[in-house]
Amino acid sequence: MLTSLPTFARLEAELGKLPGIGRKTAARLAFHLLRTSEQDVFALSEALLEMRRKVCFCQRCFHIAESELCQICADTTREVKSLCIVQEPQDLLAIERSRAFRGLYHVLQGALSPLDGIGPKDLKIPQLMERLEQEQIEEIILATNFTIEGEATALYLSKICKEKGLRVTRLAHGIPTGSDLEYIDAGTVQQAVDGRREL
Amino acid sequence: MLTSLPTFARLEAELGKLPGIGRKTAARLAFHLLRTSEQDVFALSEALLEMRRKVCFCQRCFHIAESELCQICADTTREVKSLCIVQEPQDLLAIERSRAFRGLYHVLQGALSPLDGIGPKDLKIPQLMERLEQEQIEEIILATNFTIEGEATALYLSKICKEKGLRVTRLAHGIPTGSDLEYIDAGTVQQAVDGRREL
Repeated sequence: MLTSLPTFARLEAELGKLPGIGRKTAARLAFHLLRTSEQDVFALSEALLEMRRKVCFCQRCFHIAESELCQICADTTREVKSLCIVQEPQDLLAIERSRAFRGLYHVLQGALSPLDGIGPKDLKIPQLMERLEQEQIEEIILATNFTIEGEATALYLSKICKEKGLRVTRLAHGIPTGSDLEYIDAGTVQQAVDGRREL
Repeated sequence: MLTSLPTFARLEAELGKLPGIGRKTAARLAFHLLRTSEQDVFALSEALLEMRRKVCFCQRCFHIAESELCQICADTTREVKSLCIVQEPQDLLAIERSRAFRGLYHVLQGALSPLDGIGPKDLKIPQLMERLEQEQIEEIILATNFTIEGEATALYLSKICKEKGLRVTRLAHGIPTGSDLEYIDAGTVQQAVDGRREL
């Protein structure tokens, strides 16, 4: 149907490559962009190129950055003795939003997954080992996801870090704030009971 | 949090302007694009600009086109006596996909909506009147949406076209293919009963 509209079809195809955007959503977005002012389309197009050109990864912690070091690594007021290990930059941002941590981070950029052929060398684990040698880190906080891959990665790193004599902690498992016990899955409730605290 | 990443934040903001894309989806897309190859990001950026540069509206029926006339208006094998009136290019594409119609179209680019201040002159209705004068149209098929605005538009156009002595039809109301009567709304069932056909 759109053979006579190659550029429109091409935009649809490109939008359809984005995650969570199927054929129908891509068409809806393309029709929306057709009605958007030229300036706005230009702004989006420019923003895409600019981002790809300027955003890189921090040389130290592998969080996203627009210079050699990210904002957190460049901030000299952060505690250098605690290192929080996360899978992705998004996870780091989630912890930053909580304002619960003032130390430094290390972004693995993934999790161990032998089935997908992802081993320690495919992640930023060698770089982590280097940091453990060079920096004065005393505590490692494992904040990988609470999935099979995330847990396996935490277990693997915990072993290595303990061998180096570091204090290793993991984010607490438990019931999320604002939730109703009735609707929480059994695994989480079990973890919450096991991890109960004195009041 | 993203103050140190102005280009990333800007891309997020631009993506967030798209319909159905909220703050979280925009962030997810931006992170995806960060990992996408430079070529793919460039392709999307180019596709956006190309589309905006090349896609315009057909001078005759106001469907989207990449030249003065759209593929349908340029196709000399189409029946010129039937004119199907739709609200949007997407609606035209839906009818074309059904392969049930071989005539020409007229895209109104909207529907009458007095509450939003949209009158006949804000749509392609004056241009439709011109076509009715100049072309040998015998039947008008009203295929505006089955919403309040679409129905009002159909009623308005039906009056004008009947005055001109044209045959005016409306797409059939009824039960969609593959659906279970149990789950169909009462309004639709009522329309289907009223519009029942001899077998």
